[in-house]
Amino acid sequence: MLVNGRESLAVPPGDRGFLYGEGVFETIAVHNARPLNLDHHLARLSRGCERLSIPPPNTQRISTEAYRLVGGHERAVLKIMVTGGEGDRGYAPPKNRSSNRFLRLFPWPHGIKRFDRTGVAVKVCETRLAINPRLAGIKHLNRLEQVLAGAELDAAYGEGIVLDFEGNAVEGTSANLMLISSGALLTPDLSRCGIEGIMRELVLETALRLDIPTQVRTVSLDEVMEAESLFFTNVVRGIQPVARVEKRHFKIHPLIDALREAVQGFETGEGR
Amino acid sequence: MLVNGRESLAVPPGDRGFLYGEGVFETIAVHNARPLNLDHHLARLSRGCERLSIPPPNTQRISTEAYRLVGGHERAVLKIMVTGGEGDRGYAPPKNRSSNRFLRLFPWPHGIKRFDRTGVAVKVCETRLAINPRLAGIKHLNRLEQVLAGAELDAAYGEGIVLDFEGNAVEGTSANLMLISSGALLTPDLSRCGIEGIMRELVLETALRLDIPTQVRTVSLDEVMEAESLFFTNVVRGIQPVARVEKRHFKIHPLIDALREAVQGFETGEGR
Repeated sequence: MLVNGRESLAVPPGDRGFLYGEGVFETIAVHNARPLNLDHHLARLSRGCERLSIPPPNTQRISTEAYRLVGGHERAVLKIMVTGGEGDRGYAPPKNRSSNRFLRLFPWPHGIKRFDRTGVAVKVCETRLAINPRLAGIKHLNRLEQVLAGAELDAAYGEGIVLDFEGNAVEGTSANLMLISSGALLTPDLSRCGIEGIMRELVLETALRLDIPTQVRTVSLDEVMEAESLFFTNVVRGIQPVARVEKRHFKIHPLIDALREAVQGFETGEGR
Repeated sequence: MLVNGRESLAVPPGDRGFLYGEGVFETIAVHNARPLNLDHHLARLSRGCERLSIPPPNTQRISTEAYRLVGGHERAVLKIMVTGGEGDRGYAPPKNRSSNRFLRLFPWPHGIKRFDRTGVAVKVCETRLAINPRLAGIKHLNRLEQVLAGAELDAAYGEGIVLDFEGNAVEGTSANLMLISSGALLTPDLSRCGIEGIMRELVLETALRLDIPTQVRTVSLDEVMEAESLFFTNVVRGIQPVARVEKRHFKIHPLIDALREAVQGFETGEGR
């Protein structure tokens, strides 16, 4: 692990990420010693810091450190965390704000093929997401809801759909959710809760380029169950089609294949 | 700092408290080398772990470690954290659940007199609390809302009143809120958001013993502004009367003095 650029295995005890979850993080797929879509990830990291009033990281420095860590790795997962630095006891941030950055490399997860065409079995989770526009969208470190939702998945399910407290479908436990109906793409608006994923962003950009009609708005669970086809997006798993949600089965729509190919070409072709 | 009973200054990088805020904590006032109200704190710690499916800590062991740390300290603040142990990357907890415990001693905060009679100037914060009954009440480590609310307080204000997204008054930024009206005590219900503080619990127990009529229910901001008297509760600050909220001034009700004396007698007399 690199802590502020130095090899270390220790998180400082006064780190405000540890004390209060004050910070943001990125999970990045690594292929052929390159962190994929790094520009997108660093841009989201900076947006998140800005939203939390954490001094924005030097993205050039993080980029250099990221390449240093991933060197020689064919397949891996890179995690970057930026926290609100160190402080004394007490919620209010210190007057002289600082930040800590942590970069850590993980092995590629066992059994996960990126952009696999196999459909996943999905549960509708009981855990709900609280509505808080102030914290919505960013990938901050207060992730108890995702932990509780993730704990609901047993061996029978590869993903879960998580609703907000008003009953709308928001996202997966660790992925974004997309619906296909009448040849159009629909994905939940994340301005009140949920995380704006990088693969979701890439898919939306790709849909725009391919002239696929796209909507981002509130989505009910009924709409999910009545969609023609569903898929999840996540930078490690890529685009993951849904085989079924509880007892309702879904077909893999040709649009999913078209999006997969276009996103993959875009990723590798432009070297992001 | 004691990490699982050993002197250390390092939080393990895979600690799930650090990664996701999966854990709970206690902040304990130390007086004459004794952690005050330790039984109450350890009971809440255990309740919190149970709610988050973290293996409950051995309270006897934590108690022993707490006394070991506070020995020789006239005034200090003891912080105990219990997290969901270590895991790999990924929100879902590992199958063999473990926990990590961290005990750390802090100096008594500068300028804070416990059970001070001086009234505090209070702001109504813009930061709102998200409604999530699944996480309400416990003192978990997802505290970004408190960080944002605390950041709103400048030198002119010693506390803030934080509302939920429906506009109800919930608590202070780092204390619970109590209202006095017509000789009765009223404090917000915390079953949908907020933290059930130990000093709040002591005050409610004391009010019961003193036959003071008490209500715990939803409280609007209007009710707060129309109350005869207000005070905050926090184990470090004790009972803290409110001098004003924004431009509205409040008197210190005799009930506040009665509660302060009774709680103090109870704390020291029964040695908790």
